[in-house]
Amino acid sequence: MQTLEITPAAEELLLEDAPHQFVFSFHEGNGKNKQLLGGKGANLCEMTQIGLNVPPGFVISTEACLTYLASADKSLPAGVIDQVVENMKAVEIATGKKFGDAENPLLVSVRSGSALSMPGMMDTILNLGLNEDTLQGLLNHTKNERFVFDAYRRFIQLFGKVALGVPDAKFDEVFEAQKHKAGVKVDIGLSAADLKEISRLFLQVVKDVTGKPFPTDVYEQLEIAIKAVFNSWTGKRAVDYRREFNITPQMANGTAVNVVAMVFGNMGNDSATGVAFTRDPGTGENIFFGEYLVNAQGEDVVAGIRTPKAVIELKTEMPSLYQQLEELRSKLETHYKEVQDFEFTIEKGVLYCLQTRNGKMNATAMVRTSVEMAKDNILSKNEALLRIKPDMLEQLLHPRLDSLHKSIPLAQGLPASPGAASGVCVFDADRAELLGRAVEKVILVREETKPEDIHGFFASQGILTSRGGKTSHAAVVARGMGKPCVAGAEGIEVDVKLRQARIGEKTLHEGDYITIDGGTGYVYQGVIPTVDPTFSDELKLLLTWADEVAKLKVFANADDPDAAKKALTYGAMGIGLCRTERMFNASERLPIVVEMILANTEEERKAALDKLLPIQRQDFKDILLAMAPRPVTIRLLDPPIHEFLPGEDELKEELIHLRHLKDTAAGVSNLTNSLRLLHAENSMGALTAFPFNDKGVELIDQAIVKKEQMLKKVHELHEVNPMLGHRGVRLGLTFPEIYKMQIRAVLEATAECQKVHIDVRPEIMVPQVCTAEELVRVKAYVEEIKAEVQAQHNVTPVFKFGTMIEVVRACMEAGELAKEAAFFSFGTNDLTQATFSFSREDAENKFLPLYAEKNILHDNPFEVLDTNGVGKLMKVAVEWGRKEKPDLKIGICGEHGGQPDSIRFCHQLGLNYVSCSGPRVPVARLAAAHASLGEAKNASL
Amino acid sequence: MQTLEITPAAEELLLEDAPHQFVFSFHEGNGKNKQLLGGKGANLCEMTQIGLNVPPGFVISTEACLTYLASADKSLPAGVIDQVVENMKAVEIATGKKFGDAENPLLVSVRSGSALSMPGMMDTILNLGLNEDTLQGLLNHTKNERFVFDAYRRFIQLFGKVALGVPDAKFDEVFEAQKHKAGVKVDIGLSAADLKEISRLFLQVVKDVTGKPFPTDVYEQLEIAIKAVFNSWTGKRAVDYRREFNITPQMANGTAVNVVAMVFGNMGNDSATGVAFTRDPGTGENIFFGEYLVNAQGEDVVAGIRTPKAVIELKTEMPSLYQQLEELRSKLETHYKEVQDFEFTIEKGVLYCLQTRNGKMNATAMVRTSVEMAKDNILSKNEALLRIKPDMLEQLLHPRLDSLHKSIPLAQGLPASPGAASGVCVFDADRAELLGRAVEKVILVREETKPEDIHGFFASQGILTSRGGKTSHAAVVARGMGKPCVAGAEGIEVDVKLRQARIGEKTLHEGDYITIDGGTGYVYQGVIPTVDPTFSDELKLLLTWADEVAKLKVFANADDPDAAKKALTYGAMGIGLCRTERMFNASERLPIVVEMILANTEEERKAALDKLLPIQRQDFKDILLAMAPRPVTIRLLDPPIHEFLPGEDELKEELIHLRHLKDTAAGVSNLTNSLRLLHAENSMGALTAFPFNDKGVELIDQAIVKKEQMLKKVHELHEVNPMLGHRGVRLGLTFPEIYKMQIRAVLEATAECQKVHIDVRPEIMVPQVCTAEELVRVKAYVEEIKAEVQAQHNVTPVFKFGTMIEVVRACMEAGELAKEAAFFSFGTNDLTQATFSFSREDAENKFLPLYAEKNILHDNPFEVLDTNGVGKLMKVAVEWGRKEKPDLKIGICGEHGGQPDSIRFCHQLGLNYVSCSGPRVPVARLAAAHASLGEAKNASL
Repeated sequence: MQTLEITPAAEELLLEDAPHQFVFSFHEGNGKNKQLLGGKGANLCEMTQIGLNVPPGFVISTEACLTYLASADKSLPAGVIDQVVENMKAVEIATGKKFGDAENPLLVSVRSGSALSMPGMMDTILNLGLNEDTLQGLLNHTKNERFVFDAYRRFIQLFGKVALGVPDAKFDEVFEAQKHKAGVKVDIGLSAADLKEISRLFLQVVKDVTGKPFPTDVYEQLEIAIKAVFNSWTGKRAVDYRREFNITPQMANGTAVNVVAMVFGNMGNDSATGVAFTRDPGTGENIFFGEYLVNAQGEDVVAGIRTPKAVIELKTEMPSLYQQLEELRSKLETHYKEVQDFEFTIEKGVLYCLQTRNGKMNATAMVRTSVEMAKDNILSKNEALLRIKPDMLEQLLHPRLDSLHKSIPLAQGLPASPGAASGVCVFDADRAELLGRAVEKVILVREETKPEDIHGFFASQGILTSRGGKTSHAAVVARGMGKPCVAGAEGIEVDVKLRQARIGEKTLHEGDYITIDGGTGYVYQGVIPTVDPTFSDELKLLLTWADEVAKLKVFANADDPDAAKKALTYGAMGIGLCRTERMFNASERLPIVVEMILANTEEERKAALDKLLPIQRQDFKDILLAMAPRPVTIRLLDPPIHEFLPGEDELKEELIHLRHLKDTAAGVSNLTNSLRLLHAENSMGALTAFPFNDKGVELIDQAIVKKEQMLKKVHELHEVNPMLGHRGVRLGLTFPEIYKMQIRAVLEATAECQKVHIDVRPEIMVPQVCTAEELVRVKAYVEEIKAEVQAQHNVTPVFKFGTMIEVVRACMEAGELAKEAAFFSFGTNDLTQATFSFSREDAENKFLPLYAEKNILHDNPFEVLDTNGVGKLMKVAVEWGRKEKPDLKIGICGEHGGQPDSIRFCHQLGLNYVSCSGPRVPVARLAAAHASLGEAKNASL
Repeated sequence: MQTLEITPAAEELLLEDAPHQFVFSFHEGNGKNKQLLGGKGANLCEMTQIGLNVPPGFVISTEACLTYLASADKSLPAGVIDQVVENMKAVEIATGKKFGDAENPLLVSVRSGSALSMPGMMDTILNLGLNEDTLQGLLNHTKNERFVFDAYRRFIQLFGKVALGVPDAKFDEVFEAQKHKAGVKVDIGLSAADLKEISRLFLQVVKDVTGKPFPTDVYEQLEIAIKAVFNSWTGKRAVDYRREFNITPQMANGTAVNVVAMVFGNMGNDSATGVAFTRDPGTGENIFFGEYLVNAQGEDVVAGIRTPKAVIELKTEMPSLYQQLEELRSKLETHYKEVQDFEFTIEKGVLYCLQTRNGKMNATAMVRTSVEMAKDNILSKNEALLRIKPDMLEQLLHPRLDSLHKSIPLAQGLPASPGAASGVCVFDADRAELLGRAVEKVILVREETKPEDIHGFFASQGILTSRGGKTSHAAVVARGMGKPCVAGAEGIEVDVKLRQARIGEKTLHEGDYITIDGGTGYVYQGVIPTVDPTFSDELKLLLTWADEVAKLKVFANADDPDAAKKALTYGAMGIGLCRTERMFNASERLPIVVEMILANTEEERKAALDKLLPIQRQDFKDILLAMAPRPVTIRLLDPPIHEFLPGEDELKEELIHLRHLKDTAAGVSNLTNSLRLLHAENSMGALTAFPFNDKGVELIDQAIVKKEQMLKKVHELHEVNPMLGHRGVRLGLTFPEIYKMQIRAVLEATAECQKVHIDVRPEIMVPQVCTAEELVRVKAYVEEIKAEVQAQHNVTPVFKFGTMIEVVRACMEAGELAKEAAFFSFGTNDLTQATFSFSREDAENKFLPLYAEKNILHDNPFEVLDTNGVGKLMKVAVEWGRKEKPDLKIGICGEHGGQPDSIRFCHQLGLNYVSCSGPRVPVARLAAAHASLGEAKNASL
């Protein structure tokens, strides 16, 4: 539990004799000193001092609060009451009203306000100063008996609860009884007389519970209220809130109290109340955006009994006040350099600004206002950039659920790839392809996915899995394709055979519509409308400003020509990671890859590779051409090859099916073909497409042999910890022909382009390197093939050769590696796994949630780069690498490459580029600019 | 291919005019300069110069060789022939014989000899100087016509082959024809006349092939022979040899030629020849150990036609020569400070020492001679220690196969735990227990083992698996128990159901005898006798000398009281690693652990833990008492808990069996019990022990429910990369009650001992720590429980609290960790896996063999600590840790803790201790001494 801390200043005060300033009028208080005055108090002071017409009032400081709370007898510090009285006099003069006066009574609100916003966590009392006498004065001024008694009964209840500790239930009981008696269902139905009666009864409740009559002395009311607000700082609600949000004493220590004259917009037709934004918060358009009601209170605008008018109508209704409001609007933006969301009240022809704060806007509006405010010289370009949190841009780049449609989620998984999509659920890739072709929108729902499901990805709008984390196959592939994905939704049980999934009591059948939101991880039943992404001219302009100040280049991860072209539209300055194995997954290629894996001899393997060569060459050529003259970093095969084979369980099941089919086929061999087909369909489910002619049994036998071979290979290739297994360069050195094929494909594609003077810039990258010797060996393959390609094409292919740094040992050997490599690319996904000894897939399902909840780790290191561990290794690698080769190009291509904090760290390390998924490129460009600007700012301090 | 390199010195010589010294008599040559004189030449010079009677001779330097080989016309460098002739004169004077003389001819041998020994890789010519004239002289002196012509025909053939390039086959043809003609089967059957005829025919062969008569001029013979030896340096055999053994020009560049006067032990009864060791190489006993034959040649001793006599008999046969031989023996040991293996010849009453080298001895003899030579002041204690390679001691600490019994292995796996054992094979743990109890020696043969097999380990002499590497469960547990283990013998296919294993064409059935050698990884059929280990008084003394100089303490890894007691006998100075989870594996405990794992609530889990608490407490108490007052480092639970459950496949199979049994039981419910039992036995195999009374079906149902629960849990706990999964402190923080139980067990055991003033020293160690915050949390548990134990026992338990450093990030955060920890213990097994991103189990089966073969990695980093990667991380951790806490105790408890090179590195890092398996403790103690002595030596340079 958070304990109360007495600051040294407060302690000193406890010992002091002379009176000390605890109370500050809005004209005196330092608008920047939130620690002393609280956020709200400082804001009121600032508004007052820049000349806005704020209702007069004053702040009682947080120091007063802490001193009070630490006092043995819970008495207000010496001088506070005197200073309050003195300030009340000033308020009386400013308002022309008198506190406790029966003619023209001054009423005040008493509100808490700490340095850090803690919405609703502490207490507020309105209309303080009411008693039987002052009521009359208020009635004279408002001519609204109902309003006055409503205000009165509210004051009694709030004060009773907050200041006197009367349980709310006591009041509610009385209130409900009165409603029943009056025969009304809603509060609004109560008449002035009812409310008057309720006020009377409330006073009785207070007397019954506290044993004392409700205080009628207004200064007594005020003192009790101030103490009550101070006490609320150590109340359960506030303490829990601070614990929940980790608010330390450094962030907010004690609450201030704001005492403000009440103003009323319901004092007649020369009064009004309203709320407004200085610009349209939905679109960012530079128009005055707001609503008001004449002769009304703030809560009437919200209550919806009367329809508020657009603020523009005030122009005709109260032209001079509209003019003042326009001036207010302009003053606010010029001063705050930010779109403001403010409240105003007109009391008898006088405009008051009650509150202002930065307007909450969506990303579209943020971008537009940034650009326009910069053009209008309200902001500098750099301020315009810094105003937008990079992550916010993400909203603009994926379809998202229409926020107008609320719905209760069916299940929740991990938000694995952003964006939202709806479609009918299907439970295997073949069905997805089939139904997807039938122009149905499809969501592929699987326990987990494998490379062989890839055709299902192509056919689907989005992917939902019940197992796996944010680096599961499904997540990574979906992100690469820019499709939404929810992964590891553990509540869902998929039954492929029955073509259904169970979620608790509910069953989803194939064909039922669902909607997934890859930004939140929620899964909904039915179709929820989505909003398409917009890449506006303003955004484009803003990002060119970002590029001008950023030191880091921003590359994209893209695995095929289409993705490369798409990355260009996001402003990618190159490809930082092209995962060549992804090219293996297309449905016409996977069989060749499987053939290669099943090969028993080097010759068989080479024969399969010979078929892959022209395909990869064409892919590389298309990507290189699309990106020319930007660099394209091509990573040689990385994953363990068993990833290209189906799983053991699946193969076993298929074999059972096939054997069953064989028996059946043999058994029905004297039936007609059509009957057999029917029969097979009934007994086989997904395998109906099996060619079932007269040679059926023979074909089935062949299929059985093939599947048995695959099963054997799957056993052979089984690994205990595949993440740390036979993959990357280890595979490349064990089966040199695979890497040689890939290198040849790159260099031939390069030569073909460079021969006709197209400036393509391939960079060959070796994954999983742990020692320089591995690079030396692969470099030898490269040199050998380069010579052959040169001879064949009569042109020297120009390219770079470099290495991933994703193994811890590679960091330790960075100097040696730099001798062999022209560039380094940090693979921080794997590096983080190895540095923490966390398998991401396991950690995110098993213990990372607990580590986050208990704050053992501040951030998920797979989302935010761990600068204390992984970062130190990277620093060492950069230092040692550049010491050996000062012009070493260094980048990052892990997922952290698109995360703003991590990008800032990469900037500080002096990297040359970050690479991230296409849709994160704009985010990264802005973050890179922020990093430069942040450094400049620090340098100027 | 290795190219011939010309040293700068040699190049200079090529340009020089003045004659240069290329030839060195044995009196002149510098016995230390092996680079110039070759190993053999330097040795002959050294022997000569310390006053041993070596036959006179000289060396032609490697410089001469390189200069010759680099010359355009392949001529010997200027001056060589003159210097040879000059030296031959000196030899003539020394021997009283003359080269080419028909009366008393001087014969010489011409032998190659490079700086590095390359046995058999270059050429030798004996008896050079023979021709038709000198033959007569030799006949006169030996009176042995057969010997002379045998020498002659050998000389012609060797010279013909080596110097003139005549194919061996030509000589062999002639030789075989003559044997056929003489009607003899073996060479020894040939008479002097036959050999004379052969010599004649050989001369003809040479003439036929070369077109020239065999050279009769002895100096011509000598020059041709010298050139031939030089040429052999670039011959195919030598080049291949150097490539194979990676011999670089720095190690050996060129060969020298040794020309030595032939001496003959067969010149009559005043001649003899023999070989001897200065001490008994089998036992190390200080006795003169050797054999001789009177009137014989060296090869007669080996040929076995005549039985050689023990050298002691020479005392009576030739007393004065025996006296000289004893003097020689003493002189050799005093000079070489090493047991010598030497050859001698007595020619006509004159003793010659032909060769001496360090005697090859087994470990027993090495230890005894070291201790005795130190006692005799031949060696200092430090020299006595440095003389023995630490690894050699391993021989003394495990049973080993009797080297007298040779056998061809059936299969080979990885040498996973040293020692040898024989027994009948059994294929599951239950059968092992059953048969083991029946007083059978048993070898447990499994595909791989699991913790639930532990009772099978206890019952077995050794373990053989067909899958898994040196850190597989089987390997680690066997090493911990000190039982031999061969792991990952992939050629073996185990079929548990049929109770047999196939190895190629061969089938092993349960009950067949096999022998495994965990030191080599070989598996043999049948029983091969083993030799028991000996831990002699000499070894004990030697190791106390080691402890006196070592800076590192040597601890043992021990998981139970018995192992701790055994570790003491090896001289362990504490326990560096007690793996508490091993205690969970005993067969009466595992069910409780499974109960704990299957628990669905914290209460259920606690109930199971309450049962484990007294068991663990007793274990800890016994270990602490056994080791008092030495430290005992207790590691809290480390492995993922799914390791305590059976595998998925196994459970599925058991469920099939159980369901089948249920059907059967229901079907036969009207049979008698005995019939049912029989029935069950037939259909159930291993499950016959199932209680099968009238409530059978009900019991089966319960078992099915239990197994289904387990299967569900196995699914829940499944991890993609268990090595990087939910284990160690992550588990401890997720299920605090597990760690709390273990901590309580340690502290209660401690309090119980310390209460009665027994000085026990527990150290609680947390595994898999990656951030200081984890330690903070566990420390809070410790403090909480400490307070409780203190209250309960009225004594403050004294202990240390520390952390494993086995996660890379822990190295990076060492400073922070040192704030919380009193000690660090490097877990270099896991740290190596994480640093390389190698899963050991996968790497050792998949690509490490290739990496070793292609020299991509010089050593297997799991055997020899990788100082360039893992070592750098350790260095950083030591520096940062000690910077924060200068007295931080640091050790290592990975397997590297028993590996001499790694121990040296730990010494250099300034660690306080190494911990290794019990039987490695003596090795580590000696290695620790070597490390200190090596440092002292370097410091004195």
